[in-house]
Amino acid sequence: MNTYQYLNSRVIFERAAKVIPAGIYGHLGPAEGCFIPVEAYPFYAQRAQGAYFWDADGNRFIDYMCAYGPIVLGYNHPAVEAAARAQQEQMNCGVLPGEIMVQLAEKLVSLVDSADWAFFAKNGGDVTNLAVMTARAHTRRNKIIKFAGGYHGVSQWMQFIGNAGIIEEDVSSVITLPFNDAQAVEQAFKRYPGEIAAIIATPYHHPAMADNALPEPGFWPAVRGLCDREGALLIIDDVRAGFRLSLHGSDAYYGFKADLICFCKALGNGYNLSALCGRDAYKEAVSSVFYTGSYWLSAMPMAAALATLTELERIDGPGLMTRQGTKLTQGLAQAAQQHGYHLKITGEPSMWYMRLTDDDTGVLHQQWVSECVRRGVFFTNHHNLFINTAITDEDIAYTLEVAHDAFRALRGAGQKGSI
Amino acid sequence: MNTYQYLNSRVIFERAAKVIPAGIYGHLGPAEGCFIPVEAYPFYAQRAQGAYFWDADGNRFIDYMCAYGPIVLGYNHPAVEAAARAQQEQMNCGVLPGEIMVQLAEKLVSLVDSADWAFFAKNGGDVTNLAVMTARAHTRRNKIIKFAGGYHGVSQWMQFIGNAGIIEEDVSSVITLPFNDAQAVEQAFKRYPGEIAAIIATPYHHPAMADNALPEPGFWPAVRGLCDREGALLIIDDVRAGFRLSLHGSDAYYGFKADLICFCKALGNGYNLSALCGRDAYKEAVSSVFYTGSYWLSAMPMAAALATLTELERIDGPGLMTRQGTKLTQGLAQAAQQHGYHLKITGEPSMWYMRLTDDDTGVLHQQWVSECVRRGVFFTNHHNLFINTAITDEDIAYTLEVAHDAFRALRGAGQKGSI
Repeated sequence: MNTYQYLNSRVIFERAAKVIPAGIYGHLGPAEGCFIPVEAYPFYAQRAQGAYFWDADGNRFIDYMCAYGPIVLGYNHPAVEAAARAQQEQMNCGVLPGEIMVQLAEKLVSLVDSADWAFFAKNGGDVTNLAVMTARAHTRRNKIIKFAGGYHGVSQWMQFIGNAGIIEEDVSSVITLPFNDAQAVEQAFKRYPGEIAAIIATPYHHPAMADNALPEPGFWPAVRGLCDREGALLIIDDVRAGFRLSLHGSDAYYGFKADLICFCKALGNGYNLSALCGRDAYKEAVSSVFYTGSYWLSAMPMAAALATLTELERIDGPGLMTRQGTKLTQGLAQAAQQHGYHLKITGEPSMWYMRLTDDDTGVLHQQWVSECVRRGVFFTNHHNLFINTAITDEDIAYTLEVAHDAFRALRGAGQKGSI
Repeated sequence: MNTYQYLNSRVIFERAAKVIPAGIYGHLGPAEGCFIPVEAYPFYAQRAQGAYFWDADGNRFIDYMCAYGPIVLGYNHPAVEAAARAQQEQMNCGVLPGEIMVQLAEKLVSLVDSADWAFFAKNGGDVTNLAVMTARAHTRRNKIIKFAGGYHGVSQWMQFIGNAGIIEEDVSSVITLPFNDAQAVEQAFKRYPGEIAAIIATPYHHPAMADNALPEPGFWPAVRGLCDREGALLIIDDVRAGFRLSLHGSDAYYGFKADLICFCKALGNGYNLSALCGRDAYKEAVSSVFYTGSYWLSAMPMAAALATLTELERIDGPGLMTRQGTKLTQGLAQAAQQHGYHLKITGEPSMWYMRLTDDDTGVLHQQWVSECVRRGVFFTNHHNLFINTAITDEDIAYTLEVAHDAFRALRGAGQKGSI
């Protein structure tokens, strides 16, 4: 197989470095640990369609990052684009909201088990932040429990002392505990009686740079019970997993019920929208928080989201993504085995995490991933990957071909497996 | 003149109240003080074009709120829509940014005096927050000075103790001073030597519910000098005023230079984008802050923004809006006078604030504004208003007709002026 070159990407990056901090910042930037080794990766894309994108040099990739989650039906899905365009022609960002806001809220309330209402914003972090403020407003308590490695956006309270620009006061009311440890949660409630406003958590544990973990049996029932007993809110951050496991909310998927649940990413198939949903008991508290933004009631992303949810329901998107993800990850693990390596798959198949366990440094895994990328299969390192519903059996077959070829390249370069 | 009725708006609102906190939340909601008396206002819009929008009952309004600022070229401007649509067909939210991000950063750097670089996000509050974190990262100090009544978004540190969901630690490092008082700034630096990371301020003072105030001569030079002497950053929050006073930044318009400057609103003519720009000395600090979001590098709003800035430059948008705003506000003040009232105009003509001073309660002003709204001129109370470049002389003439008719209605209802 030919491997790709990234000439235009580098030329554009040189221009970018002059006028943009770090050239490309944030989670899409080459400075991010996900793009290691950086020389294996393109930096700019020019086009995207269905399961694919084309970089600035015209190289085609099957995209298993799905724009880090938002693309759930494939790029430029016709039903979503038609709905977005029709709404844009009428009105997008206006001086008043459109009726579409009500229709979308009605849809979420009908779909999502723990949603009696919906509040729309823009970033996933807007709604995780609002959830915490709502819990503080409702309980008149200050402290928040989160789980180590859990990511809930970039607001100050979600960050750490030592991160640039973070001060002690930002995080002094946040308690960090290990995921899947209900005893630790119980002890925290004992240590801070009447002080804990909420627990915020992803429905399963999908940190970067570590094997992902499903909730152990009994963990969520125990946490739900503790929150009820202690009068604290259970906030589920479903920004990443939402609508990839179930259209009823990932809490429903794991058999429990959140008080507040945060959506973003898959909600609008790439259109800029997030939503906080929750139970009636907290509707007054969320209304009492002063929280607004210039574009939050814009109509176009809402039309896109209504079309996205409707299509996901029509085709059973979560079921389809789970089946395709299972096929793909089983195939990848088998390919590894055939070449004498061990690829460990964790998390849910529709947004799996994987890691070659044959060395302790992670370098071997980076090398294999980079060989895949250079052959047109876009994986990143150290982050869960994503399926979308446009990925076909042919795409999976091609991905497995690439995976085999990448393992051969690894072996050819003298990299030993441990099997 | 006939006055409007809002039947469909009310029917939709009843549905909304069931599934959306407060029915409509945030700055577009009827619960907001801007929409008083609420019975005078429509709640939902169905269409917008140029200078106008049509509510859910088909009533047409000349929109002097411009979606609370973002609409600077009028709704559905052809050049902006063509650029946005062309980009969307190629790629919007992707796994990598598009070259358009670099082109837009280059454009901002060439236009804005204090911009050596640009960092893009979604909310205005994303970039005011990033500016503060950048100042803290650069100076390794904690305290921030802001001015009473200044609005910088809804992040916790920008809010107040007593606001729902806000805790003491959120605001304990924020010092609030009166605008236009350089002595107070000097005293704060004396009181907290080596502790103040930054001053954040709008370029002129445009609080809600109060007369707006231009910077007094000497205020900005004094503040700039103090920041330089004390090693603190001067952050200009140009989210609301940006590109309505000058394309070079509102700091340039008032003859000083910011260290960091925040844009949003007018940047994309309604497409969802914000930008932090700043000087080279802070490029490393901003790069060091962990700050990212799912949609931040999306290409469509960037294409819209490049088209918006290009068009504003081509037609001298700020000059045009200033001329139209001057004509309109002079006409409104004269109309008031002819009917025996006094309408006080403050702030800049392209985003003026106005208030009938004939009573102390503000009720008379609310009544007059509501008579205007019922006749198709969309003003709000207690907030500055906005001009966009689609507002024609005919629109202004029609607005003045409505204003006269509204004053006649006030007089007919027995409301006395003080002149």
